Amino acid sequence: MTCLIKGCNFVLRNIPHEVFAYQKDSDTEFRFQTNHPNIFPYLLVNIGSGVSIVKVESEDKFEWIGGSSIGGGTFWGLGALLTKTKKFDELLQLASKGQHTNVDMLVKDVYGGAYQTLGLSGNLIASSFGKSTTADKEFSKEDMAKSLLHMISNDIGQLACLHAKLHNLDKIYFGGFFIRGHPVTMRTITYSINFFSKGEVQALFLRHEGYLGAIGAFLKGAEQDNPNQYSWGENYAGSSGLMSTSPDVSPLQRTRSGTFDMLEMDRLERPLVNLPLLKDPSTYIPDTVDLTDDAMARKYWLTCFEEALDGVAKRAAASQPDSVDAQERAEKFRQKYWNKLQTLRQQPFAYGTLTVRSLLDTREHCLNEFSFPDPYSKVKQKENGIALKCFQSVIESLDSLGWEERQFALVKGLLAGNVFDWGAKAVSDVLESEPQFGFEEAKSKLQERPWLEDSYSQWLERLKEGPPHKCALIFADNSGIDIILGVFPFVRELLSRGTEVILACNSGPALNDVTYSESLIVTERIAAMDPVIHSALRDEKLLLVQTGSSSPCLDLSRLDQGLAVLVRERQTDLVVIEGMGRAIHTNYYAVLRCESLKLAVIKNSWLADRLGGKIFSVIFKYEVPCK
Amino acid sequence: MTCLIKGCNFVLRNIPHEVFAYQKDSDTEFRFQTNHPNIFPYLLVNIGSGVSIVKVESEDKFEWIGGSSIGGGTFWGLGALLTKTKKFDELLQLASKGQHTNVDMLVKDVYGGAYQTLGLSGNLIASSFGKSTTADKEFSKEDMAKSLLHMISNDIGQLACLHAKLHNLDKIYFGGFFIRGHPVTMRTITYSINFFSKGEVQALFLRHEGYLGAIGAFLKGAEQDNPNQYSWGENYAGSSGLMSTSPDVSPLQRTRSGTFDMLEMDRLERPLVNLPLLKDPSTYIPDTVDLTDDAMARKYWLTCFEEALDGVAKRAAASQPDSVDAQERAEKFRQKYWNKLQTLRQQPFAYGTLTVRSLLDTREHCLNEFSFPDPYSKVKQKENGIALKCFQSVIESLDSLGWEERQFALVKGLLAGNVFDWGAKAVSDVLESEPQFGFEEAKSKLQERPWLEDSYSQWLERLKEGPPHKCALIFADNSGIDIILGVFPFVRELLSRGTEVILACNSGPALNDVTYSESLIVTERIAAMDPVIHSALRDEKLLLVQTGSSSPCLDLSRLDQGLAVLVRERQTDLVVIEGMGRAIHTNYYAVLRCESLKLAVIKNSWLADRLGGKIFSVIFKYEVPCK
Repeated sequence: MTCLIKGCNFVLRNIPHEVFAYQKDSDTEFRFQTNHPNIFPYLLVNIGSGVSIVKVESEDKFEWIGGSSIGGGTFWGLGALLTKTKKFDELLQLASKGQHTNVDMLVKDVYGGAYQTLGLSGNLIASSFGKSTTADKEFSKEDMAKSLLHMISNDIGQLACLHAKLHNLDKIYFGGFFIRGHPVTMRTITYSINFFSKGEVQALFLRHEGYLGAIGAFLKGAEQDNPNQYSWGENYAGSSGLMSTSPDVSPLQRTRSGTFDMLEMDRLERPLVNLPLLKDPSTYIPDTVDLTDDAMARKYWLTCFEEALDGVAKRAAASQPDSVDAQERAEKFRQKYWNKLQTLRQQPFAYGTLTVRSLLDTREHCLNEFSFPDPYSKVKQKENGIALKCFQSVIESLDSLGWEERQFALVKGLLAGNVFDWGAKAVSDVLESEPQFGFEEAKSKLQERPWLEDSYSQWLERLKEGPPHKCALIFADNSGIDIILGVFPFVRELLSRGTEVILACNSGPALNDVTYSESLIVTERIAAMDPVIHSALRDEKLLLVQTGSSSPCLDLSRLDQGLAVLVRERQTDLVVIEGMGRAIHTNYYAVLRCESLKLAVIKNSWLADRLGGKIFSVIFKYEVPCK
Repeated sequence: MTCLIKGCNFVLRNIPHEVFAYQKDSDTEFRFQTNHPNIFPYLLVNIGSGVSIVKVESEDKFEWIGGSSIGGGTFWGLGALLTKTKKFDELLQLASKGQHTNVDMLVKDVYGGAYQTLGLSGNLIASSFGKSTTADKEFSKEDMAKSLLHMISNDIGQLACLHAKLHNLDKIYFGGFFIRGHPVTMRTITYSINFFSKGEVQALFLRHEGYLGAIGAFLKGAEQDNPNQYSWGENYAGSSGLMSTSPDVSPLQRTRSGTFDMLEMDRLERPLVNLPLLKDPSTYIPDTVDLTDDAMARKYWLTCFEEALDGVAKRAAASQPDSVDAQERAEKFRQKYWNKLQTLRQQPFAYGTLTVRSLLDTREHCLNEFSFPDPYSKVKQKENGIALKCFQSVIESLDSLGWEERQFALVKGLLAGNVFDWGAKAVSDVLESEPQFGFEEAKSKLQERPWLEDSYSQWLERLKEGPPHKCALIFADNSGIDIILGVFPFVRELLSRGTEVILACNSGPALNDVTYSESLIVTERIAAMDPVIHSALRDEKLLLVQTGSSSPCLDLSRLDQGLAVLVRERQTDLVVIEGMGRAIHTNYYAVLRCESLKLAVIKNSWLADRLGGKIFSVIFKYEVPCK
């Protein structure tokens, strides 16, 4: 049982969107929950062959408070006897096609019209299998399986609810390998809990319900290390995700009956924590659009990622010209990601809430799986080389401007640099076809002010009237022109004003985003050319840190602990987030406790349309926290 | 549901030994409870096709707080599907022969040796039907039925216990037609309740579990009358009693599968209440020996009643010489009572705790059923005639004695009169063979002092030193010599001392006991001869009342309300109970709040042996309450 609890605590803490509530008749049946730092106390109802009900008060304090012999083994065992079907998943499939009312006696069957006086619905099941007591007819396998599933789920729901109420717990997590994402089961359990608790207790399900014990056992085996000292992330390429057992969906997965689902976790060497500047970490949701909620957006993005897939696979293969099997691996990558996309079309909830971020991350995980950890490596080097050559002339040109003109030029530089993003298809087309396309030309593509979202005047006012910021945290986006000709001049201006700068880059590669190790090289090269950067580095007024992430997007609740410590120490009072992935797909609505800038160029015409703009529309969002 | 609750309240209030706890591995599996005046609050778990859980707080205040679809219909329905057996009782029989461990997965099957750490027993069922998940073998009908019964009973037990704990109730009554006296079911439910409540909640079963709704519906139909204004008694002749469904016992009842059990209640026109002088009504138990506990005594008494049966039937037939079918009815009576005795040999618990009283009452009920309401009617008349003739000479003889001699003679008279009891076989033999056997000869048969139980000296001392009693309540026993030459001279002495007397006789006939209506005639005849009795009657210093009972024994917790009112009004400070049925088989240990005399002659050699005496040993028990 120690393993079970350890596993449960682990997934509750570490797997994003592990937990969900089930809502019948809702567009989004699955309501995923954000991970809270404090997970205790809770009730764990582990439904294996039987049912164990455990009250968990802390990592070390938990108690078996109840159980039942009517569990998964009963469904399987009785189901096998009744239907001659020996496979658990086949039984679930039968159940999904059955009508339990053919087998069960309902309240209205028993009471005629008098059940209202009891305050009961006539459709409640009065007696499971009550109709098979005397009837001589044959009952269908489907109906019997459905009745059995209802009987067991209802019973577990009521027991769990009563135990929760007796111990004043309002959260019940269901684990164990019985539910298997089966909607009827979750619906029945949820209904039962709502019915008996009058809404006071919440039924919560786990995407990895079947693996708590196994995860716990693994962690226990590795216990010389304390698992809580690391952070973990779900690897979407290795994990099979939550699948519905509804027979009509996802024929690709229908063969998995009897096989096992997969969970792969990436362990990070250092713990991930909240950005200390988040206004309310408990309500922070990184993603701007929930694609499980928004069917139109979901279709668009899935198609978008499908259409871009051939190009991504081609580039991956091209990135390793010396490898004999690159072509083959790229094709495997293509196939795998394609399948993931098809799964997500059928079951958007497979890995929690579906978002542009999760689609991007899944692609990165799939590339990694087939040994394409950094397909843009060469491209990034080449771009950095070109951009570094232009750095000094860009600086000279900026220095020749008056103060106000310079501020605007710096912001335009930041935005133009952001056009160079291989992740967006429209831009990569331009770059492929016009290799000489330069910085100035990018600027000319930008929307003229007023921008689609435009608080530039307030920003300028702030710079003009206010004191210099104490310290700015800048989340960088792309390599090459973006970081070198866009971000660094902006950093240099801040340093000149007396503002310290923390420049945060991804820990691992993702698209053409600049990584922490690349940023070290680039900064050294710039420092050699520029005395401002040089002395700032020497005096530790410019600090380079890693984010802890390898995603084109940004989750401010999972950042490298070192970054968080520094942010606090330096009393950071400005956060700059740039790029579509970091400032539009995520964090567009993030509320911070200090001033912030969110900058991006919309390089996707569908998204531009949606936001009421055109391609290359500009988002410039300067926010000041309410006092 | 109103009917259900009404019926439940009714049986809890009115049927003696309705409620019992089940104790596994105890000599007396069934622990019957005495009826308490205050039955609320309680939890009623009604197990019909499904399960309803109702919190009952008063006659009018009750609430459905839970339920389950896994009930009797599920046992029946699933059982029928699994075993092709369509009859409920046959399923129960199958279950009683099965081994659930062949079908269920036990904790030790799942955990190997590690289950101790959970504090669980290895023999607990981890998963009902867990072994039929994959095994390809056929399972026996018996094993499957047993597993099903365990599964359902355990589940109901846990649900009931949790609801009871949530509502702070410590008593759970199980009703509904599922349990049917089946030991495995009761054992499992009880085990489950004890396990989950750690002994805080008690599982209680009802002998008439299946009839609560029907009884309630009947009472509701008769609701112009308030059922609580009457008292009711179970008629043991008409009721079939609680029967075990174990297949090996009571082959006579094995045919009842699919038929219905019977409950017959006698309605008394006036409510029965506690004797106000009982020290503690809640702990008062009328019966001296629990024959379900005492196997040797049980065997003796059952044999004793069997041996006397032919004589009783013969006398019954002889009592109606003008009836053409008396012989036939007497034979039917003989057969019926014989069957009852055989049932009780197999299932001593059939009607609650088995006692000499219940055996006597059952015989009276059976005689009544075949229209022998009063077989001793003629005998009693004849005996009264003989005794009345002797009354005056007995009084004269007593009056000629000195005070101290007279007191002893009066007590000997009471005791000698008590020898004339057609109920005891040894005495009826003597009376049959020696019709001229008289009062003096009876006295000479009595044991010499010191008696087997002898507090005569204290009684004499009390009479000598103490003030006259305010009022004496005397429970009379036999007709004839007993009442006329034993009781009346004693009454006359009390009246002469200034003590008022309430003389209580049975409401209906039982053996040769004097009935209330007979006592009216006898008293009138005596008053005509004796001025003391005459003036006492006129001045209401001698009062005749009925007990409310028609039993040769005496239940001081069920007495006519009129008697109780009078006892209180007259400030009764002495209770005299005479006869084996009233003072030995019952009330031997009854504790009163005033002085009492319990007098009897032991006319049964086995009982005499047991008490360490001989036949015609005397019990004279004078008790004074502790201050």
